[in-house]
Amino acid sequence: MIEVDYRFPPDVDAQLQAKIIAIGQTAGSWDQRFSHRDRQLEKHLAEVVQVDNNVAKIRFPVFNTENDIASLLTMIFGKYSMAGRAKVIGVHLPDSYGTRPKLGITGIREKLGVSARPLIMAIFKPALGLSAADHADILKDVAFAGLDIIKDDEIMGDLAVAPTKDRLLACRRVLDEVREKTGRTVLYAVNVTGLADHLLSKARLLVNNGANALLLNVLTYGFSVLEALAADPEINVPIFAHPAFAGAMCASEDTGLSYSVVLGTLMAFAGADAVLYPASYGSLPFDPNEESQIKNILRVRNIFPVPSAGIHPGIIPRALADYGQDVILNAGTGIMDHPDGSASGVRAFFEALERVKEGKSFKKESLPDGALRRAVEKWGS
Amino acid sequence: MIEVDYRFPPDVDAQLQAKIIAIGQTAGSWDQRFSHRDRQLEKHLAEVVQVDNNVAKIRFPVFNTENDIASLLTMIFGKYSMAGRAKVIGVHLPDSYGTRPKLGITGIREKLGVSARPLIMAIFKPALGLSAADHADILKDVAFAGLDIIKDDEIMGDLAVAPTKDRLLACRRVLDEVREKTGRTVLYAVNVTGLADHLLSKARLLVNNGANALLLNVLTYGFSVLEALAADPEINVPIFAHPAFAGAMCASEDTGLSYSVVLGTLMAFAGADAVLYPASYGSLPFDPNEESQIKNILRVRNIFPVPSAGIHPGIIPRALADYGQDVILNAGTGIMDHPDGSASGVRAFFEALERVKEGKSFKKESLPDGALRRAVEKWGS
Repeated sequence: MIEVDYRFPPDVDAQLQAKIIAIGQTAGSWDQRFSHRDRQLEKHLAEVVQVDNNVAKIRFPVFNTENDIASLLTMIFGKYSMAGRAKVIGVHLPDSYGTRPKLGITGIREKLGVSARPLIMAIFKPALGLSAADHADILKDVAFAGLDIIKDDEIMGDLAVAPTKDRLLACRRVLDEVREKTGRTVLYAVNVTGLADHLLSKARLLVNNGANALLLNVLTYGFSVLEALAADPEINVPIFAHPAFAGAMCASEDTGLSYSVVLGTLMAFAGADAVLYPASYGSLPFDPNEESQIKNILRVRNIFPVPSAGIHPGIIPRALADYGQDVILNAGTGIMDHPDGSASGVRAFFEALERVKEGKSFKKESLPDGALRRAVEKWGS
Repeated sequence: MIEVDYRFPPDVDAQLQAKIIAIGQTAGSWDQRFSHRDRQLEKHLAEVVQVDNNVAKIRFPVFNTENDIASLLTMIFGKYSMAGRAKVIGVHLPDSYGTRPKLGITGIREKLGVSARPLIMAIFKPALGLSAADHADILKDVAFAGLDIIKDDEIMGDLAVAPTKDRLLACRRVLDEVREKTGRTVLYAVNVTGLADHLLSKARLLVNNGANALLLNVLTYGFSVLEALAADPEINVPIFAHPAFAGAMCASEDTGLSYSVVLGTLMAFAGADAVLYPASYGSLPFDPNEESQIKNILRVRNIFPVPSAGIHPGIIPRALADYGQDVILNAGTGIMDHPDGSASGVRAFFEALERVKEGKSFKKESLPDGALRRAVEKWGS
């Protein structure tokens, strides 16, 4: 069964609205003309399980959906999303529901050969305007400095200034060189874009041309696209789900869905291998409780949480206390805008990880000269 | 150029936020290390055109996007949607942007052979639990009564109780019979569902098996899926775009996007032939001004507006005054739950159209005995 929690504002009759949802979002009502179908119709109705503190829990038959996110959303919050103020704050799905990631935490760690520490991830910056060769130059700097993963900026699509395949091929040469010289694998999550059919064929083309990870703006392209990629046996690389546009459906108190539903539950059951979302101590306003829920929901399905936005080396002690080891720390400007350049940006993160392990202070004056100190001087700790 | 209007609450520094968007949602910032790329990077920056009454107009280079909705949304409201309270209330695109409908108003009218009146559309009800044969029985009733278009309920997917292809084949036989006996074409918009790749191949299969229209829950499956269908030469039938889930991104005053942006502009530039949305005098709360904007935005691109939800024969005078002739009036229970059955439900709509043409009153006591009077007795006027 599928259970969904809807929160209503205090002035709304939650009991009444819950009944409207349970009927109106499933079979609907019928009269005696369909009495010969009573038993079949009744099977499709949802049931109000409880209403507590103006939060209603409603149980839907799983066979009303197609085991995917789109049919789920259409049922639980399709037409009703337009009916007034109500927010979906919890979605509870059977374990067997949806699509599982092919790699997830264990698979990504295996690919990288890194078992017992957080992974460090960077973002190509500036976001738009660099050529494919510029990307390769940047990658060379950060990859040889020890970076685990790099990703395109989410707004860098398949643009004339640096077409996706050109970026991949230029960067693939660097990845090969790093592997040859250091034995290390570095993942490059290439942003895959386009109309749905082209996006899916482009993803296969990229993987066939050496892409070892993909980035998808799930919420602007559609959950059905993520699920198709995750279910495709040719796409044997991890898929990094980007949260762009999540605020459009999550930022309101009274309407839409919780961040933990969209970036936690829905991403987790749609086949993402790693999910990016704003860190509560980052540059975007984000509720620590939602962040914690997202992390837990993802990990249950072996998916890497990737707190992002405003991540810099100074927050590492707090991030490790919150997250432990199974996390990908994703920094854009926090690596690329290091005062001594992006390679120092990467080194600052690894110095920080080392320093936490040794239990040493992050106070500026206690730090030795070097990349970490320079980072903390710029961004604090 | 792409121009976007962002509305901020009164306590927000709109000028500052506009600058953050113009830079942060495009190239980002860079330092002297990229000074050799200054000219290229600058080309990708957006520009704040004006800030008036806490609404900021920002102009983005069109070449930052891929001429589609997903890359547009990622740029204009991707990361920034998570930054705080801001609502996208206008998106202005070049005429050449995006995907055009293959049929639209003129194409749908041509298929039906109906030129100068509103089209009447019904929805299969109850929504879940009827068999394919039940659907055919219902269709027979309403189609022979003169209906123009019928559609699946949006939550009726490819379910065991009535698989999509079975529904199509059962209904197709009825459509053929209607054509043979009356010469009339009736459209059946079949709900096309599934993971993106399966959805696209299923859509082709359905069309090859006689589907003469498709229904898509654009917002739960993704704009990229609508655009792929609209661009596919094999899909030579009209696509009806359903607004399910629109409230999740439109119902808040302070966050998300306006209904007229999502159900007007974005649908119009993604290739829909007809777009459903709540009628302001229907059963869902809806702002008449937003409704009017949606109608105008769609018609500019030859797309049928389809006001829906709570439509019944009694509102026809008001609907015609607001809409004129180029509209599809879409009724679910307003046809299916007519006291004398669904065929009478259809006849009531046509009686109503006739009565408006003759300039006659809709007051209950002035109505002759018949389907319209019975409808007005039940639902009012």
